Amino acid sequence: MPENQIASRLIHHGKVIDVYADTVRFPNGTTAEMDIIRHPGASAIVPFLNDPRSADPQLLLIRQYRYAAGGYLWEIPAGRLDPGEDPHTCAVRELREETGCTAERVEHLYTMFTTPGFTDETIHVFIATGLQRGATAHEEDEFMEIVPMSLRDALERIRTGEIRDAKTALAILYAAGFATAA
Amino acid sequence: MPENQIASRLIHHGKVIDVYADTVRFPNGTTAEMDIIRHPGASAIVPFLNDPRSADPQLLLIRQYRYAAGGYLWEIPAGRLDPGEDPHTCAVRELREETGCTAERVEHLYTMFTTPGFTDETIHVFIATGLQRGATAHEEDEFMEIVPMSLRDALERIRTGEIRDAKTALAILYAAGFATAA
Repeated sequence: MPENQIASRLIHHGKVIDVYADTVRFPNGTTAEMDIIRHPGASAIVPFLNDPRSADPQLLLIRQYRYAAGGYLWEIPAGRLDPGEDPHTCAVRELREETGCTAERVEHLYTMFTTPGFTDETIHVFIATGLQRGATAHEEDEFMEIVPMSLRDALERIRTGEIRDAKTALAILYAAGFATAA
Repeated sequence: MPENQIASRLIHHGKVIDVYADTVRFPNGTTAEMDIIRHPGASAIVPFLNDPRSADPQLLLIRQYRYAAGGYLWEIPAGRLDPGEDPHTCAVRELREETGCTAERVEHLYTMFTTPGFTDETIHVFIATGLQRGATAHEEDEFMEIVPMSLRDALERIRTGEIRDAKTALAILYAAGFATAA
């Protein structure tokens, strides 16, 4: 039972998320009921086609249909953790399934809470280098196109707001600012 | 009715979110039912205490209790849009309510989808400069402490993963990389 949880009531058990109404004790001792979306967590991966410290680093991005966003979004490869799955294993699996690539090196960069006002979802972000191309294995509800893009171009598309998926923008800015400086 | 929506069934009407099961037509013509969390959207604001282009820019951050995250998170001031509220107005209001500050200039930086796999939530990020301190007006379910922090320190806490709220890390990296270069 999570800290400060007094009670928890399942409202909806879904395919991806579970919706709960929890009774919570706040730090000042008051209690209230609040909705919480429980999610298994996910991994995402920034795939570099060449050396990220080179003069012109190249990425592999995905153009993916997102019903909730009302259209297509630019994203990095990502997906939910299988039950008991290690985030690193998940990142490698999603990279292979969504882009067909395997990577020589996959390293953890960052872990984020996506929107902690109403969900416990975390996304673990990895960086992949030394890519080898292979066949993709999309899930049947995934509609995506794989697009090579320079890091410079991706940063410009974040600046203009064309890349507007939070995990993708954060992962690319993080990788651009920190991993390449390491 | 959103594009590609065939049907929509309300599962739960909450205080913050609404949970729907929508029947969706995907780009390849297949249909499926999927859960979607509808959210009114939010604004967030990066408050600079001095010139963001100075040698040592200073921010105002918030240390906020988040039940879904199991503890306290570092965040920038943020909150939900009131019905019909303009995102700019919301950003100014949340800055005042959460930090007690008013700002000479509030400019839009970026708009993100927080986690478009299951919610339509967007967060509009603004930058505030020319701050004047005043009294706070926290909502009763908000437990937070206001903490001045240098941009350099904030970037280091993103690098180490101590700052792990996605909107906060993304907004600070965006403001550090783009706004200060403008």
